[in-house]
Amino acid sequence: VRIDLAYDGTAYAGWQVQPGQRTIQGTLEALLERLQGGERSPLRGAGRTDAGVHARGQVADALVTLRHDDARLGHALSRLLPRDIRVVALRTVDPAFDARRDARAKTYVYRIDRSAHGDPFLARFALHVPWALDRERIEEALVVLPGRRDWSAFTAAACEVEDRVRHLTEARLVDAGPGEQRFVFTADGFLTHMVRALAGTLLEIGRGRMTTGELRAALECGDRTLAGPTAAARGLVLEHVRY
Amino acid sequence: VRIDLAYDGTAYAGWQVQPGQRTIQGTLEALLERLQGGERSPLRGAGRTDAGVHARGQVADALVTLRHDDARLGHALSRLLPRDIRVVALRTVDPAFDARRDARAKTYVYRIDRSAHGDPFLARFALHVPWALDRERIEEALVVLPGRRDWSAFTAAACEVEDRVRHLTEARLVDAGPGEQRFVFTADGFLTHMVRALAGTLLEIGRGRMTTGELRAALECGDRTLAGPTAAARGLVLEHVRY
Repeated sequence: VRIDLAYDGTAYAGWQVQPGQRTIQGTLEALLERLQGGERSPLRGAGRTDAGVHARGQVADALVTLRHDDARLGHALSRLLPRDIRVVALRTVDPAFDARRDARAKTYVYRIDRSAHGDPFLARFALHVPWALDRERIEEALVVLPGRRDWSAFTAAACEVEDRVRHLTEARLVDAGPGEQRFVFTADGFLTHMVRALAGTLLEIGRGRMTTGELRAALECGDRTLAGPTAAARGLVLEHVRY
Repeated sequence: VRIDLAYDGTAYAGWQVQPGQRTIQGTLEALLERLQGGERSPLRGAGRTDAGVHARGQVADALVTLRHDDARLGHALSRLLPRDIRVVALRTVDPAFDARRDARAKTYVYRIDRSAHGDPFLARFALHVPWALDRERIEEALVVLPGRRDWSAFTAAACEVEDRVRHLTEARLVDAGPGEQRFVFTADGFLTHMVRALAGTLLEIGRGRMTTGELRAALECGDRTLAGPTAAARGLVLEHVRY
């Protein structure tokens, strides 16, 4: 089955199962195991979201042995899951479907609370940035980003992935109602912390602490220390996975 | 000083100080006491919100002894408060100002998540109502509500207020983007659980389990058992206080 999920990641140590930690994948797998009378069904998720990161459009697949129809299984999962994880859709798909490998593009959104005082209703879901941001400088930097390139300057130092080339096809800043702005990034894949490092760098540029020239240099040298800081996890949402 | 506050009430046992409980008023008073080197400044809040109820426009007053200017004090409070309580504004006012008694009208909003699966980003802030609601039946019932009357049928059984007459001036259902609807109620004052009982009753009417006739009967008899259930606290927000 293919399972489309939305979650508030605040209370979780990310998507991926980790011993002794509460994770999204772990919570779902434990529930499936319970529903299947002890039989395990490992899940594969399209995006391995970090601790505190949210999702509106996470996609996972699992080989389930239950004979429920799709609607009934989706309903059973939703009823038994905590309120911060929701099954948006569940359907039987081709057994060859691989939620991770078949993903053609992912869209992440980074939410910024622009209110002066900080909106308590966004505290779990956005980074509070009350200071002035130069929109023109940010737009100028956003133009530089799209393309197929090595993103070494925008990934966690510990990242052990060898191929760091990804094709970024969308990098935008949009207004989302009064008091909120959002970065939107789409790529064929993202490295660990890549979106948060991009958001952190763009915010430094908006604040006048970095320049688009420095951003270009970071991209060219592939040196993480030349890019801006990794923005807090709570602003990040896995918005959509395209197949 | 007059302090305008916004808060996510999920983690609090309501506005009012209660021994051994974490409350909004208690958190603020403890912080003021700390800033004033042990000197206490009791707060008066316009609305005594219940456990789990939120606010965008709560207003409180306090006699502070700090010699900070308003902006600096507001800033100091905001920096030291947890992220789920925010000082939206702080200003010196006439010493006669009483946030509770001087309030001329209050507006409460009750938020309803109308998505099929339940939006995890609204789980703390809205009641999930996935079933069909008959908008026409609700609108018909909303017309009956405004006016100056005894609201005994819409208050907690334990409510010991003697005067249960309040003047309701606004009762509406509005669409708030895709997947969300909101009840909006304005009155010169509200009884304990009044908005939640109104929301619960209107949802029963929308679902076809109660009629506007039964609503009228409840209003006339003042019998709490004739009205609908008290809707969950998490959907309720103190939106605005007018002076």
